[in-house]
Amino acid sequence: MPTYKAPVEDVMFLLNDVFGIERYGNLPGFSDLSPDTLEAILSEAAKLCEEVLQPLNRVGDLEGCKRHEDGRVTTPKGFKEAYEAYRSGGWMGLSVPEEYGGQNLPATINAVMQEFVSAANLSFGMYPGLTQGAVAAILVHGSNEIKQKFLPKMIEGAWSGTMNLTEPHCGTDLGLLKTKAVPQGDGSYKISGTKIFISAGEHDLTENIVHLVLARIEGAPQGTKGISLFVVPKLKVNADGSLGGPNGVSCGSIEHKMGIHGNSTCVMNYDDATGYLIGEANKGLNAMFVMMNEARLAVGIQGLGLSEVAYQNAAVYAKDRLQGRALTGTKFPDKPADPIIVHPDIRRILLSVKSFNEAARALVLWTALRADVLHRSGDAKARQTSDDHLGLMTPVIKGVLTDKGFENAVMAQQVYGGHGYIAEWGMEQFVRDARIAMIYEGANGIQALDLVGRKLPRDGGRAVMAFFSEVEGFLKEHASDEAMKPYVAPLKTAFGHLQQATMWFMQNAMGKPDNAGAGSADYMHLFGLVALGYMWALMAKSAQAKLAAAANGAEDRLKTKLLTGRFFMERMLPESAAHLARISSGAATMMDVPMESF
Amino acid sequence: MPTYKAPVEDVMFLLNDVFGIERYGNLPGFSDLSPDTLEAILSEAAKLCEEVLQPLNRVGDLEGCKRHEDGRVTTPKGFKEAYEAYRSGGWMGLSVPEEYGGQNLPATINAVMQEFVSAANLSFGMYPGLTQGAVAAILVHGSNEIKQKFLPKMIEGAWSGTMNLTEPHCGTDLGLLKTKAVPQGDGSYKISGTKIFISAGEHDLTENIVHLVLARIEGAPQGTKGISLFVVPKLKVNADGSLGGPNGVSCGSIEHKMGIHGNSTCVMNYDDATGYLIGEANKGLNAMFVMMNEARLAVGIQGLGLSEVAYQNAAVYAKDRLQGRALTGTKFPDKPADPIIVHPDIRRILLSVKSFNEAARALVLWTALRADVLHRSGDAKARQTSDDHLGLMTPVIKGVLTDKGFENAVMAQQVYGGHGYIAEWGMEQFVRDARIAMIYEGANGIQALDLVGRKLPRDGGRAVMAFFSEVEGFLKEHASDEAMKPYVAPLKTAFGHLQQATMWFMQNAMGKPDNAGAGSADYMHLFGLVALGYMWALMAKSAQAKLAAAANGAEDRLKTKLLTGRFFMERMLPESAAHLARISSGAATMMDVPMESF
Repeated sequence: MPTYKAPVEDVMFLLNDVFGIERYGNLPGFSDLSPDTLEAILSEAAKLCEEVLQPLNRVGDLEGCKRHEDGRVTTPKGFKEAYEAYRSGGWMGLSVPEEYGGQNLPATINAVMQEFVSAANLSFGMYPGLTQGAVAAILVHGSNEIKQKFLPKMIEGAWSGTMNLTEPHCGTDLGLLKTKAVPQGDGSYKISGTKIFISAGEHDLTENIVHLVLARIEGAPQGTKGISLFVVPKLKVNADGSLGGPNGVSCGSIEHKMGIHGNSTCVMNYDDATGYLIGEANKGLNAMFVMMNEARLAVGIQGLGLSEVAYQNAAVYAKDRLQGRALTGTKFPDKPADPIIVHPDIRRILLSVKSFNEAARALVLWTALRADVLHRSGDAKARQTSDDHLGLMTPVIKGVLTDKGFENAVMAQQVYGGHGYIAEWGMEQFVRDARIAMIYEGANGIQALDLVGRKLPRDGGRAVMAFFSEVEGFLKEHASDEAMKPYVAPLKTAFGHLQQATMWFMQNAMGKPDNAGAGSADYMHLFGLVALGYMWALMAKSAQAKLAAAANGAEDRLKTKLLTGRFFMERMLPESAAHLARISSGAATMMDVPMESF
Repeated sequence: MPTYKAPVEDVMFLLNDVFGIERYGNLPGFSDLSPDTLEAILSEAAKLCEEVLQPLNRVGDLEGCKRHEDGRVTTPKGFKEAYEAYRSGGWMGLSVPEEYGGQNLPATINAVMQEFVSAANLSFGMYPGLTQGAVAAILVHGSNEIKQKFLPKMIEGAWSGTMNLTEPHCGTDLGLLKTKAVPQGDGSYKISGTKIFISAGEHDLTENIVHLVLARIEGAPQGTKGISLFVVPKLKVNADGSLGGPNGVSCGSIEHKMGIHGNSTCVMNYDDATGYLIGEANKGLNAMFVMMNEARLAVGIQGLGLSEVAYQNAAVYAKDRLQGRALTGTKFPDKPADPIIVHPDIRRILLSVKSFNEAARALVLWTALRADVLHRSGDAKARQTSDDHLGLMTPVIKGVLTDKGFENAVMAQQVYGGHGYIAEWGMEQFVRDARIAMIYEGANGIQALDLVGRKLPRDGGRAVMAFFSEVEGFLKEHASDEAMKPYVAPLKTAFGHLQQATMWFMQNAMGKPDNAGAGSADYMHLFGLVALGYMWALMAKSAQAKLAAAANGAEDRLKTKLLTGRFFMERMLPESAAHLARISSGAATMMDVPMESF
């Protein structure tokens, strides 16, 4: 059975040493966060995830969710109790304003919690995760009445949330959606239509479910400009906030899917269900985007979480499993064979995953800190640069961390040999669960197009130029720093490739958008490599400084950190040249193939 | 529901145009193979796979195999009838000597059939596939008595075969195995022990099952030099060939696994079961290697088969699914949206898979033809070069075709968006099924070590030098061929990287084997890239010649072939530089990380 240990120490290193969280002390919610308080919160988070959520991960996979004839859906055994522990621990409203019952802690802490929860039990984590997304959308776009009516119950965890976008004939292309909203005299709407792939659409964890639903108001324009966002509760809510009778919402069926069996993926039928408009009519996509951006970051973090838990288990197995002898001669003569971790190829796999995870965690926290600045700073300029950063990094984090997270789960599974394919060992579940993160909240091809087609050119390239100039500044500052050379030199090469690729798009894709589309996936991964490489440069810098000052027994950990970073630089960054070559080969060959020849 | 169409036309192009199968007419079994006969055989194979085996693929996944309380195992509904169709069609003995009831057709034709069967229904294909492996081992190492007793029944399909290597504490490291063989007075042995992961270990398709079992004769040396191979039938076989009573063999349980649910993966218990030695005592690994090499090629072919069927379905979906509009403007104004195949990123995915499949198929057939020369030619020199080629290419085909086959299935699944994650669409089954091929018959890390540690240095590097000189010859011959430049130039670059990597090993890994281990996986994939690139160069040459002569309406197909090859050269070969960079970074960083820091 797999185990999980939340990487609290690594998070502390990142927040305290690498990113200097104390520098954010002037922002609301950060002021009381001494290193001790921070560690206490993270330890509580770790405990819940390690002791309550993780042991239910396999149960969730085996048992799955069950839809009963009356449309009720029950979650796997133990999920209700775990949900109660999560809810009563106050984790739902961790970084939500106190006004609605939240704790107003930094979103950065919530991002850490999201990693721990996803690693421990992704299927479980989706229930509160979707509520958090719905809360975010209502906070930004809901009327005061809607906020008062729904938010306290949702933040308390008594009611949960969902997002309803996809229909059978449309996922990416929401302009095709057909769900109808008919205005009633009282300001409410009657919603009718069918939504599919609705995660946590129906379940038994909460007394009510608050669906956020995209629909088209009768007579609205065709396409994406006629879409509005509605809140549609499963049970009607009376004026005094108490629960009324059933609304016209029901779960038609639950999907049979590759993984995340513990989460109910529902077909939701809306039949004259009463709903309330969120934000402006016909501007539903804007409102939904608040939820989607939160969700995209959260999904990227899921990729990291699964990569981390898969790594941890593979490392344990590699130290336990005795098989063969080291290529350089027997290392454990007293044992019938050496543990397989003596083999370079096993270390290559483990370090590929480990070196990715540590940099990905840094990228997530670096970006989450910007989200806190965006939402909490009084400095308009700081808010703008943070917003730029978030917009730019969201598709990179979603796309790269989930593509690689899956790939890493597959690599970790490989360490187990035949046992990796057997369900009892748990590794194949990580692979199946990790696979969804590449698809939902915008398939990764869409993330790549978002990066290349929208985020790069936005505001004259302001966001990407800010990132480039930060990396350039770092490279210049450390150009003659001998100790940093193993990190700076490879980063410089990869960064050069990214600059060339960006230039290539400017010269070749403006008039020929197919050239942008053809290179988008490679560009996203090239961008990710450079961003992760930059994270390693920052981490190496901090680790070197700390090591120089160390007299605390942390030397081994810091040396391993530095070696792990070198591994990333030596083994992962060389991929940048291949990405550039593919990008600059353009679209001509692929577009010349006749459609019928596929 | 997924569909499958066997790529008969592509096979015909390869065998007739690219590899000139008529040049092999002097070998036994090839003489009657006119293009018409060949096409007739392949069409029959296609029919069985498309109409009988493929429709059972999902049934097999859903239903799985069931072990009953008495130890019997039943296969999914329809498998028995399908097996009867396969058996009575004579497919089991396709390339086996007529003496034992086979048809003595080229092993190359059998390789084609293996691709079709794996693509249609991998779980099903494993039943006859394991029999073929067992037949191969008995043919080479069995005594005449054993051959007469077992082969005709196996080739007829009345009895099936298995391989029993793995035990709970040993897979890769067979030197640790504990299963015991106690000699009886009559030349037989009593076998006792537990074997795990035994594919097709127990089932209801045949009246008897012939287990090939590795065990240690009492008193034999420790390690791999004390292992012998035994044939242990499930039901005893009387002297006259009729079936006797049960032997001491039973299925203790069947594994719950990620995929290939239609095949029974058994824990097999041997309890004083009567067995007969195959080959010499204590030389069981040699005898098993015959079976393993056959099986490794077959598993590589499975990777190709799954990649092909996943590609085909993704291509159909991409042409059907309407979503969004082309980046360059609406292409199908009469439809509510354009089919997603208009998007470069979808074409990138499809062509990545398609360009791999066509080259992988070429590599398999090129190598299978050498296997036929090895086993059928009277020319000792030709046999030797063929043996060299087979030894060299077996780990490459097994490792690269299964790693990429899985990756390709994942990419094809991505084309479906959310639907790719839903079981009914069948794509997620391809992914789950394809995953095992990277593990069984020697995990791919072992294939890479086999290539670098044994196959490269063998006979002073004779095999690799022969391959290098063939590629070099081709590059020289076409150095000034303008039409071939898009193929020759990238191949030359990648080939240069492979030569440099080989040189790097010679200079840096002889005394430091960790440097070989650390670079082995990258070397295997670099080798595969060059081999596949060379296949594309050969195919481009043939397609250009055929196109110049074409007046037969095949122009579109040939032009697509040439474009597909260009795509491979532009998009896949650039990876070679990254492999070289990783290889030449060596083992130092990874070996410096303390074991306890993982």
